[in-house]
Amino acid sequence: MTLALDPTAQDLLFREARTVGAFLGEPVSDEQLQEIYDLVKFGPTAFNQTPLRIVLVRSDEARAKLLPHMSDGNRDKTAAAPLVAILAADNEFHEELPELLPHFPQAKDLFFAERPVREQSASMNAALQSAYFIVGVRAAGLAAGPMTGFDHAGVQKEFLDDDHSPLMIVNIGRPAPEAAFPRSPRLGYDSVVTSV
Amino acid sequence: MTLALDPTAQDLLFREARTVGAFLGEPVSDEQLQEIYDLVKFGPTAFNQTPLRIVLVRSDEARAKLLPHMSDGNRDKTAAAPLVAILAADNEFHEELPELLPHFPQAKDLFFAERPVREQSASMNAALQSAYFIVGVRAAGLAAGPMTGFDHAGVQKEFLDDDHSPLMIVNIGRPAPEAAFPRSPRLGYDSVVTSV
Repeated sequence: MTLALDPTAQDLLFREARTVGAFLGEPVSDEQLQEIYDLVKFGPTAFNQTPLRIVLVRSDEARAKLLPHMSDGNRDKTAAAPLVAILAADNEFHEELPELLPHFPQAKDLFFAERPVREQSASMNAALQSAYFIVGVRAAGLAAGPMTGFDHAGVQKEFLDDDHSPLMIVNIGRPAPEAAFPRSPRLGYDSVVTSV
Repeated sequence: MTLALDPTAQDLLFREARTVGAFLGEPVSDEQLQEIYDLVKFGPTAFNQTPLRIVLVRSDEARAKLLPHMSDGNRDKTAAAPLVAILAADNEFHEELPELLPHFPQAKDLFFAERPVREQSASMNAALQSAYFIVGVRAAGLAAGPMTGFDHAGVQKEFLDDDHSPLMIVNIGRPAPEAAFPRSPRLGYDSVVTSV
């Protein structure tokens, strides 16, 4: 192995890390979430935009409102997870660009004046940030259970507004033993990478 | 710091890693790319789909064809980078689902029979995989310069086909000293995370 990242970290973030549906009861604190965010906020995006928004479903009332929107296969996992986070894209992210891109504040109006352009950019870049967030959850020694199987319109109406589109819901916690499926196959390098 | 990931790895992947536009001349080998891919292929996606495709622009002829499609601000960086990779989404990824999701092969037809649904899923999940790839480039001790500023239709026509949509183009190499802008600000935790 010639990667600069040491093998223990490779295992923690990718090789041994698994999507799980069952967790130990141990809670996940706001301090842990802040450490995760303060690490992964540096992940690169287009024009340094930061469309990702995270809604932590902390209260019993909020959890009870979320569960009916989950698909049948995801409801029990979401009911039992120590922490549930709704990841969403802010389609009005361009308002922050003058602050986030001080050397090119014109980007806000030059590129993002039109809402459909913003929605496309917000969903793409919030997806990048969601992946960094999942890596960050693993960096904290926790497991993430990301899910797209839920009523997106229902979750938007219940927890967000017209300017925020849900991307995924992530269960977070310390994994229960034997909580993961056997690892499914991945496409090999030669199926994915070509040279021209 | 209480993250399980050691601080050196945190710096390598997020805190010290920077998007750069200028690289040393040192080439990036196919072996390095394979190590990167073989690490980040384990990053989670919905239904274990693997829509990401990577086209390495290796030949002078291919590089010459690519440059006219780059935006003015990105052309010189792309001309000079040791390696340029086109990251694309395969909108027909569902054909692989029976192989990739052996415990639920019906997903292919149950969820992905319609092309617009596939395109949406392919771009979302290939974006997740693109973020894992950027993290992997950094894990290899290299710097990534991801760019969305190019003629997407032109790159699709020149290098891909109707079933593959370009997402971003990534310059890859060992960064030149002073190759990065000063770090721009990021939104703080309290601007991004709320609890309900």
